[in-house]
Order: sequence, then C-alpha cells, then structure tokens
Amino acid sequence: MKLFSSVSDVQDIKQLVASALALKANPYAYGDLGKNKTLGLVFMNPSLRTRLSTQKAALNLGMNVMVMNMDKEGWALETQDGIIMNGTTVEHIREAAAVMGEYCDILGLRSFPKLQNREEDYNEEFFNKFVKFCGVPVVSLESATRHPLQSLADLVTITETNPISAEEKANGKVPKVVLAWAPHIKPLPQAVPNSFAEWMSRAQAEGMLDFTIAQPEGFELEESFTTGAKISHNLDEAITDADYVYVKNWSSYKEYGKLLDFPEGWMMNNEKLKLTNNAKVMHCLPVRRDLELASEILDGPNSLVIHEAGNRLWSAQAVLKAMLEELK
Amino acid sequence: MKLFSSVSDVQDIKQLVASALALKANPYAYGDLGKNKTLGLVFMNPSLRTRLSTQKAALNLGMNVMVMNMDKEGWALETQDGIIMNGTTVEHIREAAAVMGEYCDILGLRSFPKLQNREEDYNEEFFNKFVKFCGVPVVSLESATRHPLQSLADLVTITETNPISAEEKANGKVPKVVLAWAPHIKPLPQAVPNSFAEWMSRAQAEGMLDFTIAQPEGFELEESFTTGAKISHNLDEAITDADYVYVKNWSSYKEYGKLLDFPEGWMMNNEKLKLTNNAKVMHCLPVRRDLELASEILDGPNSLVIHEAGNRLWSAQAVLKAMLEELK
Amino acid sequence: MKLFSSVSDVQDIKQLVASALALKANPYAYGDLGKNKTLGLVFMNPSLRTRLSTQKAALNLGMNVMVMNMDKEGWALETQDGIIMNGTTVEHIREAAAVMGEYCDILGLRSFPKLQNREEDYNEEFFNKFVKFCGVPVVSLESATRHPLQSLADLVTITETNPISAEEKANGKVPKVVLAWAPHIKPLPQAVPNSFAEWMSRAQAEGMLDFTIAQPEGFELEESFTTGAKISHNLDEAITDADYVYVKNWSSYKEYGKLLDFPEGWMMNNEKLKLTNNAKVMHCLPVRRDLELASEILDGPNSLVIHEAGNRLWSAQAVLKAMLEELK
Repeated sequence: MKLFSSVSDVQDIKQLVASALALKANPYAYGDLGKNKTLGLVFMNPSLRTRLSTQKAALNLGMNVMVMNMDKEGWALETQDGIIMNGTTVEHIREAAAVMGEYCDILGLRSFPKLQNREEDYNEEFFNKFVKFCGVPVVSLESATRHPLQSLADLVTITETNPISAEEKANGKVPKVVLAWAPHIKPLPQAVPNSFAEWMSRAQAEGMLDFTIAQPEGFELEESFTTGAKISHNLDEAITDADYVYVKNWSSYKEYGKLLDFPEGWMMNNEKLKLTNNAKVMHCLPVRRDLELASEILDGPNSLVIHEAGNRLWSAQAVLKAMLEELK
Repeated sequence: MKLFSSVSDVQDIKQLVASALALKANPYAYGDLGKNKTLGLVFMNPSLRTRLSTQKAALNLGMNVMVMNMDKEGWALETQDGIIMNGTTVEHIREAAAVMGEYCDILGLRSFPKLQNREEDYNEEFFNKFVKFCGVPVVSLESATRHPLQSLADLVTITETNPISAEEKANGKVPKVVLAWAPHIKPLPQAVPNSFAEWMSRAQAEGMLDFTIAQPEGFELEESFTTGAKISHNLDEAITDADYVYVKNWSSYKEYGKLLDFPEGWMMNNEKLKLTNNAKVMHCLPVRRDLELASEILDGPNSLVIHEAGNRLWSAQAVLKAMLEELK
Repeated sequence: MKLFSSVSDVQDIKQLVASALALKANPYAYGDLGKNKTLGLVFMNPSLRTRLSTQKAALNLGMNVMVMNMDKEGWALETQDGIIMNGTTVEHIREAAAVMGEYCDILGLRSFPKLQNREEDYNEEFFNKFVKFCGVPVVSLESATRHPLQSLADLVTITETNPISAEEKANGKVPKVVLAWAPHIKPLPQAVPNSFAEWMSRAQAEGMLDFTIAQPEGFELEESFTTGAKISHNLDEAITDADYVYVKNWSSYKEYGKLLDFPEGWMMNNEKLKLTNNAKVMHCLPVRRDLELASEILDGPNSLVIHEAGNRLWSAQAVLKAMLEELK
C-alpha cells in the first residue's frame, strides 16, 4: 500500500481487518519490520487518539517516529500555485512536503477542512498536494473529507464483537449497523461520517453487515460516500433491531459550514437503546457528554467507545505494516 | 508500585533512595526492563526538568516515550460529572484518560492547581480522576498539591551529600534540614513545599534527618503535610546551624490564591549563610535570581541546585523501574 | 568536535564534507555509535528542516532524541547578569542550560536574533551563554548570526554536483559560486548568508571553488564573514558564467533591523539564468515563490533546493558523528 486515504485504497478489507486483529493478538511479531525506517507525523490540527495510537503502532513495528505540529512548531503553508508569496504564508506545500519526504520513509498527515469553501475542501487540495509532492507513502490522519484509520478501527471493532452466531451466519444473517446523527453546538466536519459510510457500504457489499444511516433532513452526506446505504430521517425507526449504533454529529453538506437548527430527540440514551437489539454503542471520540450521547450509555455496559479507541492502535499498525512490506 | 503521587505511596523510602543512587552509578543496568513498554507523559502545564529527566529516565530503561502537551496540542478537558457538555470543554477526562491508558503502559501527568478554589485544588480532582479512569500505573509529574519526583530527588541529594561523619552518626547526629520560604512576585502553588515537607517529615520519622520549616506568618502550609516538623517564623533562628537550606516561595494557604504582603529579610544570601553550618543551599528551579535567592549563593560553592536537578533523572528512573517490575 | 557553531570550529572542511557523503552512501554504518547517548534539541524559534533532519541524523546513529520547544513548552529565559528577576523572565539561562546538560550528552540550540540591537545579536549572547553553562558539546541549529548546518549541507551539495571535469580540474578550474541577494517583504536575519559566506570563503581559500557575492548597495554583510569574496552590486554581472547561484534575502547590516527600499531586478528567473553557465540554483528554504525566486526555476531542472535540503540530514549526521567519537 502506497496511500491510505480512503477505502478505495484497500484491495481487501477483510484481510486488513484480519491483519489488525492478528497484530492485537501478537503486537511485537513484526518488531523488526520497521528497523531504520522513520515515520513522520505531520499535524495541521490538534490530535489525541490519532497521534498516540499511530505513534505507538509505529514503535511496535520498530520504526522511529518524528512528530511535527506544523500549526504550532512551524509556519503557515501555501497551497495555491501561480501567486506571488508576499502574504502570510511562509512556505509552499511543494517545498515543505518534498523536504519532509527527504527525511521520512512514510508520512502521516492530518489536515482538517476549513468549512468555508465546500469545493476546496472536497477537492482535498491540501492533502492531495502533500501526497503528490512528498514522494513517499502517506497515511491520512484525517483529511478534509475522510478519517480512514478511524473507520478501519470501527470495522475491526464490529468484526471483533460481532454478536451473530455461526448458525445465524450460515443462514445469511449479518449485524445491523446504524450511523446515527447526533446534536452538537458547533459545525463539525463530515470526515468521520463520510469515511464510516464508505467503509460500511463496502463491508455491506462484501456481505459483512447491513448498513443504515439516520439523519435529520438537511444533513444528508455527499452521495458518493453513501452508495448502497439505507437512509432514514427517523432515528427511532432506523435503530430498531440495530446491533450497533454509531453516534456522530456532522454539519450540513448542503448548507456548507453553517450551524443549522435541528429537531429534538436525536440524542441516543437508554430509552432509545430499548428499541435496538441490545445494541453496542460506538463513537469516534472526543464526545460531548449529554449533548451528543447520554452519559448513562457511555458509562454503561453497551458502550464500546474505549474498546474502539483501543483498536485505533491495531488498525494503524496493520496499515503501517502493509506499507513497510512494500518498502522492503 | 502502581501510583507515585505522594510519600505515602512509597513503602520504603530508604530503599527507593538507594535504588536511585544505584541507578546513578550504573544507568543502563536495567536497559532491557522497559523493552516494548511505553510511557506517556501528559502535560497540562509547561515543564522543563520534569519532562526531560523523566523522558531520559524511561529511555535509560529501554522504554518508548510519547509526550503529549495536552494544553497546546490537544483540547480542554472536562472533569465535572452530570453536566451537559455544551461549553468550552471538548472531551471528558473519563474518556481522555481511558484512551491514553489504551496506548501506554505507564502514564505521567502534570496538572497545576488553578489557585482559585482551594477545596477543588486540594481534592486533586483532575489528578485523581485521571488515575481512576486511565487504568494504568501513574506517576505524578506535579499535581495541584504535590511534586513527589522533586521531593524524592531532594532526599536523594541530601542522602548523597550528607556531611555527618560515621562517628557522629553513631552518636545519633543527623543533618539539619530547613525549608525556608522566599519572596516572589506571583502567587505560586504549594505543591513543592507540601511535598518536600511530607517527605522530610517521613525521613525525620525514620531517623534520617532533622526538619524545620521557616515561613512568615500567614504562609503556613496545610497541616497534614507538616506533621512532625518544627515550625519557625524567624528565618535567622531557623537556619542557625542548618546543614541544608531548601529555598522556595509559596503563596498563602489561608488566603488562598492571593499575593500577600510579606516582611523584609527573607531572601537567602551569603550574609545569612554565615548563620548556618556552611549549609548546602537547594532549590527545585526555576529560580528568580536575586528575588528568591541571591546570585552569590547560586554561583558559589554552597549551591546544590544543578546537582539536585541532575538527580531528578535517577529519581524518576527508580520510580519507573519499580513500576516496570510490577508490570512484568 | 565539542562545538559546531562556525566554520572556524572545523579543522578540515574537506574531510567533514567527505564524511557526510560517506554517510549518505551508508546511513547506518555507525548505527551503534550513539547507543545510550541522548541529543537534546532546544528551539527558541520554529523549525522544520533543521529539526527533522537533525533528529533523523541522530536516530541513524542510534542516539535518543528529546525535542524541547522552549518558546512554547517552556518559559522565557533571562540572559542578563546582575539584575533582580522580578519581570517576565522565569529562569536564567545559567540554570536552564546547566540543567539541560545534566540530561543530554549533546545539545542543539536554535536561537534567532531579535534584530533590534545589532551589538547584542552579533555578540551571540544567548548562544554563547548557553554553550558556556550547559557543559556539554553544542551544535548550532541556527544562531543570531550563523547557520552552519545549512552551510555545510550547501558545501556538500556543491561538492556532490560539481560540474567541473577531471581535466578541467587538473587545469585549475573550479566552479563559480554566487551568493545572490533576493527581495523579501520582511527584514530577515543575516545568519544564512553570513554562514554561507564564511564557508564559501574558506572553501575558496582551500581551492574548492570561486566565490562572489551580489547585493544591492546598503545590504553589505559584516566584513569578517566575507573576507576573500568578490563583491558586486550588479546581479547580472555577478552571475555571468556562474555554476551555482545561491539565492537568499537578508536585511541590512548597516541599517540594522530596518526594511530598506531596494532596486528592481533582483529576483532570479529563467531570463537571468541564461547569463549563467546553466547554473544550479540553491536556496536554504523556506522560500517565498515569485517574490524571492521564480517558480519557473524552482519547478525546473536547474533547482537544487530539495536535493540541498536532503543533504541537511547527512551534514548533521557527520557533525554528530564527529562529536560522538570524541565523547567515547
């Protein structure tokens, strides 16, 4: 693998999930694979889980890691071509990316959307230019429109905790997974739900699960991410008999960057949980308690959020392992 | 050891001091003990000595280290339960701590007091919740009310430089140690003097030294930290015949968070040094020269401040070694 | 080598260049030399290339690396002696440097000039006091007046790409190197051009190349750096038949800290390139495109800027290797 930015970069998602779970069972089995290889983690935005889990994943493989908070330790980068750089940007991404590629064997990049210009964000200008000019394999640590390490960890978690018995499976039963929109006080990017949707749609196409998205009107995700998913505007209907409810806020794609009004009744709590098939509840974190998701769920037996965050490690390790194997 | 936050977490302080001095003599003797173990250092506040010495200590034991400046690279954490998180805090400490515990075998945490609400600070709400929810052993890198790695290094330094001869020792003589309040322009936490007081009181109880605290009226430390210590409001009297003078400013516990007026004559200098038994002068650093402590002392032969800072390394290494041995 | 701050710290520049190129050919040949040795990288200012290349260089030698962004993760340091520290500085460089020396075997320091007081900057007060008080070998990561790791990488790059044939060389021909002033919108330090000038002058004295400086009137560098260099106030004349044009802005030394007006026609572009001997174009980066240097050059076949940045790694590794060999 030379690029990990989207589910379409992965040839075999079942194999990648299996690799993550094998690494979880035996974390240091490939402890020399990354010897004398360096991972550079470049952050244009803050990070907790992604940074620590990816750093640890690389260490488990014997890699060296260099972390660069470009937003704080560096300076502003220019992405536009054909302009005279007499403003506030100090270095062009053409040079900055190429230089980082000189010192690192693999690079990870986090770069959030600005949520001001939809076309610019959805073109993934910053991420794509970084990939183009750095000249080494790149792992997305969350870009303007996707967060693939999170989605892989989510699929690993669902696979690992799948409640469907062997007999039911033989009869064609698969777990029902629902992505459920949740309230928030800020307009958040669509990266996590876009990514979750494209990974779950792919998993559905491969017979691994059944996938539904529940969202209020006006909060539809961009269509290319949701192909094959059932879409509902009624949370209670959507989560009925669900095995997994994946809770996440996102702001409107249509009214881009705006904080729209939304209807009551979209926060998952124990009352709503009764509608489900004793569903496991997931969230990518950070989560705002009792705004996005009820504390009673987070502190109760149905929450998978910490388990899921733990799996970020093995997912990152599986991706880095696949990249290192091609470097050799 | 599963927690290092206070002297009461240590079963045998003499043994821990001896371990630190043994590591100083042979830094790489346990260079494989930490293989495939990861230390996460989490800072809610700036750090120089603590960060570098603890990081180096872990490296000497073969550990991996991940540093997370949560205040700068992350976001604001919530500690209160039962509230709707629709304000400025982005993640609850319940999740943040648990997630860090997923990626690290041992965590270190620095979290200063806010000096606004004494009860909140002295309850160590942030530190204790972090310990509770992270699920792995925790080393305090200075909390609201204590700085135990500093105090251990101080006791190591006193033990190492003890001027009492074997003959005097046989006659029951021990070094006289004085904690001496010093002036400052800002209201500083009580963490360092609290910790120093509880460690020296314990060392006194174990026959290692004689302990006195000198402070102006109004600057008394919280009593549970000073049990057994002699208390004086007269600096000159207190330091007479002292073998060690430990200089440190702290703000009032009674008038919490306020910058009180204080009397003249509380800065240690060469003139005052004449009253002592040619005392060694200590300070945890950073020190404001000629405000807290005279340059003539810092630059003279009686200063132990750099030596003492150097011992931070071996103290941290002894604590991490004790934790790693229990992880195995 | 115990100090690397200026070309005068290097006994044999040809040997150091050769060492860098040997390491480039065989990066891990000395992978155990730095075992159990720690490099501390201390930044008072932002850094991208210097930080990542020096960190990677140390890792290639088996060292541990600790990065300290003192400006962001720490606090303000005092350099003046004899003052009462009752202002904004929290710790004196005497203590801060000495403490860092306790935890590190080698230290690197970046400290930019303030461009307010020329004498203070050119006295290198901060850098020299740090060296004096830390007590361990120090590598400059760019000081107020010099950037020697950059200049070494530049000389490595020129040596590596030298277009002079063996026959021409036998006839005494050497490449013509021109340092060419370039426009900018901010008053920049003279560190890079000062350093480049002193390294190229030394290389010229050792018969390695021919060195010319082109600058508008009023932008003359301090004379001690340019001894032996040909000086021109006409860019076109200076670059005629050049084999290398090293493009860089710097602010006036005479009118210190000011942003002077400057004449038109000082930006290198393809038109000007025609005057040269198909010169390779260099720049230390970051570069402001189409302000300092034309994009058509940066994106064309004559640009060496990424190659040159890549050589920062081997230059740093050669310097660290030389220091480690003396530590043993």
